[in-house]
Amino acid sequence: MRDDPVRRRRAFPLAQGRRGQYFGRMIEPHPSGGYILEELAVGMTAEKRVTVTAERIDLFAEASDDFNPVHMDEAFASRTAYRGRIAHGLLSASFGSAVVGTILPGAGAIYLGQTLNFHKPVRIGDVAVARATVASIDEAAARVVLRCDVLVAGEVVMDGEATVRVPRRRRPAKG
Amino acid sequence: MRDDPVRRRRAFPLAQGRRGQYFGRMIEPHPSGGYILEELAVGMTAEKRVTVTAERIDLFAEASDDFNPVHMDEAFASRTAYRGRIAHGLLSASFGSAVVGTILPGAGAIYLGQTLNFHKPVRIGDVAVARATVASIDEAAARVVLRCDVLVAGEVVMDGEATVRVPRRRRPAKG
Repeated sequence: MRDDPVRRRRAFPLAQGRRGQYFGRMIEPHPSGGYILEELAVGMTAEKRVTVTAERIDLFAEASDDFNPVHMDEAFASRTAYRGRIAHGLLSASFGSAVVGTILPGAGAIYLGQTLNFHKPVRIGDVAVARATVASIDEAAARVVLRCDVLVAGEVVMDGEATVRVPRRRRPAKG
Repeated sequence: MRDDPVRRRRAFPLAQGRRGQYFGRMIEPHPSGGYILEELAVGMTAEKRVTVTAERIDLFAEASDDFNPVHMDEAFASRTAYRGRIAHGLLSASFGSAVVGTILPGAGAIYLGQTLNFHKPVRIGDVAVARATVASIDEAAARVVLRCDVLVAGEVVMDGEATVRVPRRRRPAKG
């Protein structure tokens, strides 16, 4: 999304340059790229904003080989219950998994599972706020559950839970 | 994915040209684009094959704004627990939701929820077989649960359940 300011502000590697994207007292990416188990606490929250564009939907269709006309074809979609082209559900979900994989806990976390509940369709032009909050920590299993919400204009359009395994220690710096 | 034979064989609109993609006694897309509630039965199965390419991962990263280096950077990923670049979990999941949204039940189904369990990483070059099977039908609520599996080389790499609302009748043909 070359013309998306959210993207333009994102630096690579991940631990740099993200400050502008977060609000209030949100958690930022750990300087190492990811949090380890002992650094996590219930209630920690991170979020990012992504604008849903036709280009994102087209890219997602190419990636997933999902060219369902409800996502691709405004004329078709306008005659369905959705009354217009909508984003793939897993595209909105991917904004949440991006928060989990790149901010909280970030690098090193291993994705074990995800639940998703779709409440409202997401449309071109919507600004999605994807938020992940640590809901529970199983110290013995090194398993962390994060509540994931995606909001558009203050309304929850999607929620669910991500379950990840989090490393207990940081790997030594790589040469 | 312009060079992918799976894509080249896919015709648009969705109800045409898919025969070559399915095996055995698999369900094919309904000629209208989607099945209605009374046409569904527990045990009906549909599947499609998608080859995981670096290009698909790159497209997914652009779509989702998820540039986690475990997906993007072979040198970085080779030093993680994954020991090499892996596909985003939701990219593999999207192959399953494509089956649900475009074949079984197909057009007209409204996605209500999805659970996902990630068992093994998916890598560039893997041929993913995404399969959806009708697991239960709630006639009163017009709600259908489909078991979703994604297999690579005969092993389940991901599974879960999709919950959809399915129309009770087909809309009249549109002019």
